[in-house]
Amino acid sequence: MPESIADIRHEDLIVTDSLLVCNFDREIFEAMRTAGITAANCTCSVWEGFQDTMKNVGHWKRMFREHGDIITQIRSVEDIRQAKADGKVGIILGWQNTSGIDDNIDYLELYAELGVKIIQLTYNTQNLVGAGCYEGKDAGLTGFGRDVVAEMNRLGILVDLSHVSERTATEAIEASVKPVAYTHCCPRALKDHPRNKSDETLRSVAQRGGYVGVTIFPPFLPKGTDSTIDDFIDVVDYMVGVCGEEHVGIGTDMSQGQPWSFQEWVMHDKGNGRRLTTFGELVFPKGIERIEDYPNLTAAMARKGWSSGKIERVMGGNWLRLLRDVW
Amino acid sequence: MPESIADIRHEDLIVTDSLLVCNFDREIFEAMRTAGITAANCTCSVWEGFQDTMKNVGHWKRMFREHGDIITQIRSVEDIRQAKADGKVGIILGWQNTSGIDDNIDYLELYAELGVKIIQLTYNTQNLVGAGCYEGKDAGLTGFGRDVVAEMNRLGILVDLSHVSERTATEAIEASVKPVAYTHCCPRALKDHPRNKSDETLRSVAQRGGYVGVTIFPPFLPKGTDSTIDDFIDVVDYMVGVCGEEHVGIGTDMSQGQPWSFQEWVMHDKGNGRRLTTFGELVFPKGIERIEDYPNLTAAMARKGWSSGKIERVMGGNWLRLLRDVW
Repeated sequence: MPESIADIRHEDLIVTDSLLVCNFDREIFEAMRTAGITAANCTCSVWEGFQDTMKNVGHWKRMFREHGDIITQIRSVEDIRQAKADGKVGIILGWQNTSGIDDNIDYLELYAELGVKIIQLTYNTQNLVGAGCYEGKDAGLTGFGRDVVAEMNRLGILVDLSHVSERTATEAIEASVKPVAYTHCCPRALKDHPRNKSDETLRSVAQRGGYVGVTIFPPFLPKGTDSTIDDFIDVVDYMVGVCGEEHVGIGTDMSQGQPWSFQEWVMHDKGNGRRLTTFGELVFPKGIERIEDYPNLTAAMARKGWSSGKIERVMGGNWLRLLRDVW
Repeated sequence: MPESIADIRHEDLIVTDSLLVCNFDREIFEAMRTAGITAANCTCSVWEGFQDTMKNVGHWKRMFREHGDIITQIRSVEDIRQAKADGKVGIILGWQNTSGIDDNIDYLELYAELGVKIIQLTYNTQNLVGAGCYEGKDAGLTGFGRDVVAEMNRLGILVDLSHVSERTATEAIEASVKPVAYTHCCPRALKDHPRNKSDETLRSVAQRGGYVGVTIFPPFLPKGTDSTIDDFIDVVDYMVGVCGEEHVGIGTDMSQGQPWSFQEWVMHDKGNGRRLTTFGELVFPKGIERIEDYPNLTAAMARKGWSSGKIERVMGGNWLRLLRDVW
């Protein structure tokens, strides 16, 4: 039976964002609710070590209490469905680095129990687990890294490879017994950038049941800061062509509310080391400039003539399927 | 003028050990005094991170106060000469890893000011700076590692490469604007072991004004636990042949007073991770089984017919020359 042409309402969808790195507070939570976001992977560790990451998780627990009327912590796919039913925004705690465990694998179980459900193996440079995409050199997954991936598999923590370098990512894809994700990236075939991914690597993630979230981060888009939401949907469609309709979603990488000092912090090795990259003002694609613009994504997909099934999958269904498989 | 055949008294020499990793307490300090050791590089960090390393340094400061009658902290070559004049044992605080700075280069200056004068870049596995000798893979010095070496150069902290892997060591030798050291190792030409060093690498350290301390650690010796002190002196002599008489010393790696749990800790990645190596009971060469046997080294060198100049240099003179150049 052919799928119907989209006559779909954004507010009926389960809508997910596989990467937000906002300056989270009530204002952001309200923006997420306005956006119709059901659940998002919310970064709570980038360069931080164990103690500061625990502080961040503790701060989130306080926010879950204080803003429990509009947000809820997500630990399972069932929690996401419940959030939708309750009209709340689901928060998945995630990391963009493994610095949060310092050098101690045993900490992974503590974090798993506290609800950290997604961990990116490296952030931009070499860490104890492997190389990042700006390191230049890349010997792949370290011995410790293999142990970390195995423990994350055991604990049901999703392996994220977005800022990981090519060889380390390839070895992690092979080492992981569960599907893995690029929660936020773009295809290198459309824009040659060290943070973008080759079709080959994207395909290997999809072939093993993984997921790729497409980001609106302007430096990674073919048209950069001149992009429109329709240009972005074309990139998503390219990704669907590479990975298949069941393996692609949206991972905006929006950093709403963050001061410029935050951008400087993430652009320097370990926050205060050498500069790794530089990007100008972050002008997101016209039409999806702020979290509140999220409904425009569904509309733009419908405008492209996408089927309602494809829209449902890309807007959230694929991300849910992945999380069910991994968690 | 030919140098005289040794008519040298051990107690007149400046005697150094470029690596001790004992369970330091008054009993060990007294053994060091009995041994006639003028100054030794005493390990105060192996797998520890910032906070635990600071605790260790704090504990050393307490020991300097409480045992000030027999030990003294060394911050300069002049301090070593003063220790000799005062009949005290000089303690150089050193690390076998860079885990003590966590991920923060700024900490190096704090440690330098507290008197940490020697830092090994990696311990056995991959860390933020580079690969260790048991990692297997080796992409060389990381970007962060280059920054660490430059900062150590600026602060006058000696770069130690003993447990570092080959490529990372080679790149560190090239990156460092000051001479570097293998404080404790053996030549791979005599015993093929991942911790031993190729003649080529040993030579490149010496050629840039560096220093190589030969260890009595039995797994690295050609005759293993069957070695005698004379066998060990033969290994030292081989090293002199490779590096030259001005670049070799003694770095025993003795771990006197340490419980077996300590050996297990160092043999596992980060202390509690995967097993990296295994070694049986540590039977040191007959004649140099304990710190107190140190005078036998001088006697064994004389027995081999070494000149007094060569004995003086290997027993301490070369180490002092290196420290003067680096500090």
